[in-house]
Amino acid sequence: MKRKLVSIILLLIPVLVFSQSPKKSVEKWGVYEVTLKGPSTGNPFVGLELSAVFTNGKETFEPDGFYDGNGIFKIRFMPDKEGTWTYVTHSNNDKLNGIKGSFFCTPPSDNDHGPVKVSDTYNFSYADGTRFIPFGTTIYEWCFSPDSIRKETIATMKHSPFNKARMLVLPPFNKRYLKGPYKLDIFPFEGTPPKNWNYARFNPAFFQRIENGIKQLNEIGVQADVILLNPYDGGWGFENVDLATDKRLIKYCVARFAAYRNVWWSLSNENSFIESLTDKDWDQLFKLVQRKDPYHHLRSIHNGDRIYHYTEPWVTHVSLQNYNASKEPGVVPLLRDIYRKPIILDEINYEGNINSRWGQLTGQQMTHRFWTTYVGGGYATHGESYKTSRWISNGGGLIGTSPARIAFLKKIVDAAPALNPIDQAYILNLAGEPGNYYLKYFGKQAPKQWKFELPHKNLKDGMRFKVEIIDTWNMTITQVNKIFEVKKLDNYYFIDKENRSVKLPGKPYMALRITRIE
Amino acid sequence: MKRKLVSIILLLIPVLVFSQSPKKSVEKWGVYEVTLKGPSTGNPFVGLELSAVFTNGKETFEPDGFYDGNGIFKIRFMPDKEGTWTYVTHSNNDKLNGIKGSFFCTPPSDNDHGPVKVSDTYNFSYADGTRFIPFGTTIYEWCFSPDSIRKETIATMKHSPFNKARMLVLPPFNKRYLKGPYKLDIFPFEGTPPKNWNYARFNPAFFQRIENGIKQLNEIGVQADVILLNPYDGGWGFENVDLATDKRLIKYCVARFAAYRNVWWSLSNENSFIESLTDKDWDQLFKLVQRKDPYHHLRSIHNGDRIYHYTEPWVTHVSLQNYNASKEPGVVPLLRDIYRKPIILDEINYEGNINSRWGQLTGQQMTHRFWTTYVGGGYATHGESYKTSRWISNGGGLIGTSPARIAFLKKIVDAAPALNPIDQAYILNLAGEPGNYYLKYFGKQAPKQWKFELPHKNLKDGMRFKVEIIDTWNMTITQVNKIFEVKKLDNYYFIDKENRSVKLPGKPYMALRITRIE
Repeated sequence: MKRKLVSIILLLIPVLVFSQSPKKSVEKWGVYEVTLKGPSTGNPFVGLELSAVFTNGKETFEPDGFYDGNGIFKIRFMPDKEGTWTYVTHSNNDKLNGIKGSFFCTPPSDNDHGPVKVSDTYNFSYADGTRFIPFGTTIYEWCFSPDSIRKETIATMKHSPFNKARMLVLPPFNKRYLKGPYKLDIFPFEGTPPKNWNYARFNPAFFQRIENGIKQLNEIGVQADVILLNPYDGGWGFENVDLATDKRLIKYCVARFAAYRNVWWSLSNENSFIESLTDKDWDQLFKLVQRKDPYHHLRSIHNGDRIYHYTEPWVTHVSLQNYNASKEPGVVPLLRDIYRKPIILDEINYEGNINSRWGQLTGQQMTHRFWTTYVGGGYATHGESYKTSRWISNGGGLIGTSPARIAFLKKIVDAAPALNPIDQAYILNLAGEPGNYYLKYFGKQAPKQWKFELPHKNLKDGMRFKVEIIDTWNMTITQVNKIFEVKKLDNYYFIDKENRSVKLPGKPYMALRITRIE
Repeated sequence: MKRKLVSIILLLIPVLVFSQSPKKSVEKWGVYEVTLKGPSTGNPFVGLELSAVFTNGKETFEPDGFYDGNGIFKIRFMPDKEGTWTYVTHSNNDKLNGIKGSFFCTPPSDNDHGPVKVSDTYNFSYADGTRFIPFGTTIYEWCFSPDSIRKETIATMKHSPFNKARMLVLPPFNKRYLKGPYKLDIFPFEGTPPKNWNYARFNPAFFQRIENGIKQLNEIGVQADVILLNPYDGGWGFENVDLATDKRLIKYCVARFAAYRNVWWSLSNENSFIESLTDKDWDQLFKLVQRKDPYHHLRSIHNGDRIYHYTEPWVTHVSLQNYNASKEPGVVPLLRDIYRKPIILDEINYEGNINSRWGQLTGQQMTHRFWTTYVGGGYATHGESYKTSRWISNGGGLIGTSPARIAFLKKIVDAAPALNPIDQAYILNLAGEPGNYYLKYFGKQAPKQWKFELPHKNLKDGMRFKVEIIDTWNMTITQVNKIFEVKKLDNYYFIDKENRSVKLPGKPYMALRITRIE
């Protein structure tokens, strides 16, 4: 009811302020684009400043504009309130300065929940309050695959459990990674391959390709984890640019992409492998993104060997590459305590059979790592690197056995309250909401029974619970044909009042879902 | 040779500067004490400023003085260079201001290696370059046990593997912990127990007791990890003081204790359980210690639930309470990567059988946690809490089964190169020096054999290794009656050229020591 009232008020205000109705409209969290004709001589990528101040009378945003080639300049804006917005441009070029306009922001469409933000310290939600639970995958260079493969990628994503995709801006294009059948046909800078680039001039068509990718992911509800820099020179010389070029590239990306609500910023993949950039340089680059992005999209960085200090205030969440964190229980809870931010394990090795050992997980190992991560209170990112499936590089189709199991896990997690670790100092692999919901994962252990015993928090004698046995690999959920009623054992634990246990099949990768019955 | 030359030069300089020879002498890294008569009226603990500038002509230190009761003021100084030092006092009290003197600093005695510092990012050494490998234990309130028990504690420590002792300044004295037979007979503030304290006046006898403890530990070569604050009110009201009192207490401790070379500062035990102090308050307290301690002794803090940001520049090493970090392999290497500082797991539960679950480890569990920590490239701290042995509170004797095993581990670690994790992204529980020395710990696994396979770093075909099988619990080292010669397997591993394995007894808690033969 409250929201409706606000909408009505917002609808009334513009009528009073503007005599003529705005010409254009865009939905809340959609992209409003101002297109301007400007100079095409000289180098409009360097030295020409352009921005616009957008306001609805209460709030003000000032996104940068960018040069899109052929004398065309654009300023993109993502309104976060319904109603009328006005704008005025600012530029050191007279032709582009002082241009005014307005538009109307309509309610969001059904699948538009706004950008994703951190919520409750360790979790995420969309701007409209809807929970967002990341289930990531990796399609580094999918934007540079042929059109048919890009279409296939979107179709695959749509029917997968994945709602976040890690993708590179600068393509190494199989020079360092899996050798693929495709040739790179588009480049970020003006010039000619392999290395004859004018780093001071961007190639707008290249960035249009990426923003089309971002848009396509948005249409199917997938977050685009846009990786701005990377250490994979790929023979093109994109790694060995100077800090000024890095900054110009980042500013250009922020100006072009920030208005897309599904954008997350990843400053780099394996950042420490770019040897010319120190942690202080990365601090600067982070602050640049923070300053330039008016919407404060999520910001993180993915480490190589040296782990960036994710505690820095400009980092919104952890995007860690550490395989042990998903292999062993207890690590993700510790990472939560260390960083007090959401923990995303953004590289946990890939399912596949390539020669590199980072791409040799079985589907079972990948599934195990996902379970360990989520029951630890974190989020994981999938990737697939079979010799016959270059998903992590090119996209296309998936042939692995883990995606179906990750979809099974996702169903369970989506139906659960937030998975916060419970009594993690003493108990491994237990998460949920004390007193109401417990998800217990046994990992590589293969117990034949589990003594019904829960940590005391929020429990009282007489509370009743149902128990389901989950086979994480065979994707079955079997309800135990008993109701368990708890009684206090000591200062730490409650047990079943008849001291009963739950029978288990003596296999690895089993889990329990324990739910309170009202 | 160089050092001798410097010494000779230092010996010559004072002769030129001072016509008369200094009256007193103290060894390098010993404590030189200036005693002054001053006012005993009013409150000399508050508002009276006193310090002295000590210089050898090149370097300058300005330690604070402190009031020791009965009109006596003291300034303590730890010289770090041999030769003549002069000093002049500064005070806002005329009687204590402008007093000059000098003394001569002699070479250190045999067991004096100076204070301990961080070395090579993850490790420690004394100021003279000698390696220091912490093997900690916990004797929180030993200074307040009866004299006979204090003597027994020192005798026990002397014959134990432990070279670092965690001890509290403010005693909860068994109010919160294990109930002991002793009564607290001395208090930090003037007043009467239980809670009638004048927080603005310290009781010098109390602090003399603590510094005697520090001195006694120093005499047997044990580092005193002095815990300045704690959340254990103990019924005395020491927790609920205000920030100004905390600061005055910390300044007083630094002024009194900093000249003892074996001092480490721990800002607090379980700091986050002091609810009135925020992380910003802790930042301030850290900076206070940093500013006031002229010798920059090691500084850390021990967490309760909320983990302090050990990345802060004023934290020299991590002093973490997290049990999983020592239970599971791979966590300590990750902590090293996160913090890039030495990792000390300063509370990993205690060996014992008390009702609280933090004091219920078996000796085998404690031993396992030590091995996991050291093979992870970190350091652990022991404690014992049997119903019949209150070691962690009162000191006295040790009755547990882990200290002998920790001594066994210490012998191995002392004889090894620095234990840095090797290939830790893929291999768990392997540490040492690639190409020369490997310590592999199998933990709870009970393999019947281990295929000889080492990560490639620094290896070349034809290198030869001997292998010893270590039973960490039974404290045996058995040499395998074979020499293993390596050949390259692939980009990652070398194996024995005859593809042989090492036979193992199929028991848990086994380790291998693999050493290159010249």
